[in-house]
Amino acid sequence: MPAAADATPLALVCGGGSFPMAVADSALRDGRPVVLFAIRGFADPDSVQRYDHEWIHLGAVEKLISLLRRRGCHDIVIVGNVLRPHWWQIRLDLMTIRLLPRILAAMRGGDDHMLSRLAEFVEEQGFALMGAHEVAPDLLVPAGVLGSVQPRPADLEDARIGLDVVRTLGPFDVGQGVVVARRHVQAVEAAEGTDWMLERCALLRQRGRVKLPDRAGVLVKAPKPGQDRRVDLPSIGRLTVEMAAKAGLAGIAVEPGGVMAVGMAEMVREADRLGLFIYGIAE
Amino acid sequence: MPAAADATPLALVCGGGSFPMAVADSALRDGRPVVLFAIRGFADPDSVQRYDHEWIHLGAVEKLISLLRRRGCHDIVIVGNVLRPHWWQIRLDLMTIRLLPRILAAMRGGDDHMLSRLAEFVEEQGFALMGAHEVAPDLLVPAGVLGSVQPRPADLEDARIGLDVVRTLGPFDVGQGVVVARRHVQAVEAAEGTDWMLERCALLRQRGRVKLPDRAGVLVKAPKPGQDRRVDLPSIGRLTVEMAAKAGLAGIAVEPGGVMAVGMAEMVREADRLGLFIYGIAE
Repeated sequence: MPAAADATPLALVCGGGSFPMAVADSALRDGRPVVLFAIRGFADPDSVQRYDHEWIHLGAVEKLISLLRRRGCHDIVIVGNVLRPHWWQIRLDLMTIRLLPRILAAMRGGDDHMLSRLAEFVEEQGFALMGAHEVAPDLLVPAGVLGSVQPRPADLEDARIGLDVVRTLGPFDVGQGVVVARRHVQAVEAAEGTDWMLERCALLRQRGRVKLPDRAGVLVKAPKPGQDRRVDLPSIGRLTVEMAAKAGLAGIAVEPGGVMAVGMAEMVREADRLGLFIYGIAE
Repeated sequence: MPAAADATPLALVCGGGSFPMAVADSALRDGRPVVLFAIRGFADPDSVQRYDHEWIHLGAVEKLISLLRRRGCHDIVIVGNVLRPHWWQIRLDLMTIRLLPRILAAMRGGDDHMLSRLAEFVEEQGFALMGAHEVAPDLLVPAGVLGSVQPRPADLEDARIGLDVVRTLGPFDVGQGVVVARRHVQAVEAAEGTDWMLERCALLRQRGRVKLPDRAGVLVKAPKPGQDRRVDLPSIGRLTVEMAAKAGLAGIAVEPGGVMAVGMAEMVREADRLGLFIYGIAE
């Protein structure tokens, strides 16, 4: 990153959830000014107003670019959920409409494809698309055991199998999450997301479809191999720990440096309280 | 198969569902006598009594073997669900108790491993474990389009991707089913089973988490590569078609010769009525 760009305010294009604010706080702790470009209808107004910010509409690319230029931004990070937009939340300006064929073409062929096209476009406009992990590296889950609960040998084996599954599924642009229990793959995450998969694992046990002792099995999360890490690194948090506990799992294992955690200290406290380990898989 | 064995009555060890009866009917149509060894609490008594049969308890291996010998059986097929047995449904006889260490060892390491150990044991006792597909080949879904609805090029592409995913996951002993829609993997089946996965796909659309036009996406089923096909070939039926329709899919694609269908004609009629294709993927 050139020193000149580093001095410019960081642009955080900000959807829903608490993740954008965690990234902003981390960058501010590093002494870098931050401007939130908060997407109306998604970003939380109460949180947004605590930061230097601009409101934007989803789909208003031209407006966003002119605001980015006016604020002297160079580095852009896109964070937070933009799930299920309603039509009235989308405002297409002229530039967006001109871009529609490219946007539609990018939407074919999986998330990774779309994200690389987005990065290309941002660069054409003279900006740089960065990953949350680059501006807020303290949000990445490190290698090793995080809390006071240690994974047992059977857990380490489950973690290893889970990591293999995620990596094997990489070419299909799917499966940042998988649950392995006693060497059996219990669930593979696709479009439903991690929370829903963990709910399913809890039900599989309740309904007796999967018979396991309590605290057996590991949730494994890792980025897809070759994934553009600038957008959408997998993440875990306190809720993930709670849902993993409800699913009867022994802990959570992640690819170190490849998975983010919002509220890491709080998450680890909760894991300790519930008796789950959190482990950055040592290779 | 030696001619001598072929003349002996076929032993169908029979759990729940209608699948065992479909296999019995198919063998009988071929002129082969059949004896059902119906597992108490699982096999349906009304259906069982229409056939020459013996009742057995789950877990009573010694008793089963003596019955098999008394009936002059040589070839054994095991079919039907034995899901979630209650303790009072299990009767361990002396032979089973002696076998317990082997059974427990076989239960580690995935379904495939367990099935090969089972086949080994059956052969040691002088019997042969056969697959339902060997004694009832007319239950296998053939290559090509089965009903009157044709898959479109986009569906064929989804089917191909789905088959790749199933084959890639083979080494992990998981995923006989997968849903692919417009080149995106929507869901991967693990311990939850096909029906549950299809319910999830329906919910993913209802909740707007996946946005697709109606009748887009394909359920793909195929045996795991290297799977011992003598037990537990994947299957589809009328219910699968109905659930695929509710999930908004365009059709069902299977590995021809690798997936069984109970009530094939009825299933195809239902698929035609609902506008879904059923397709044995041509390689």
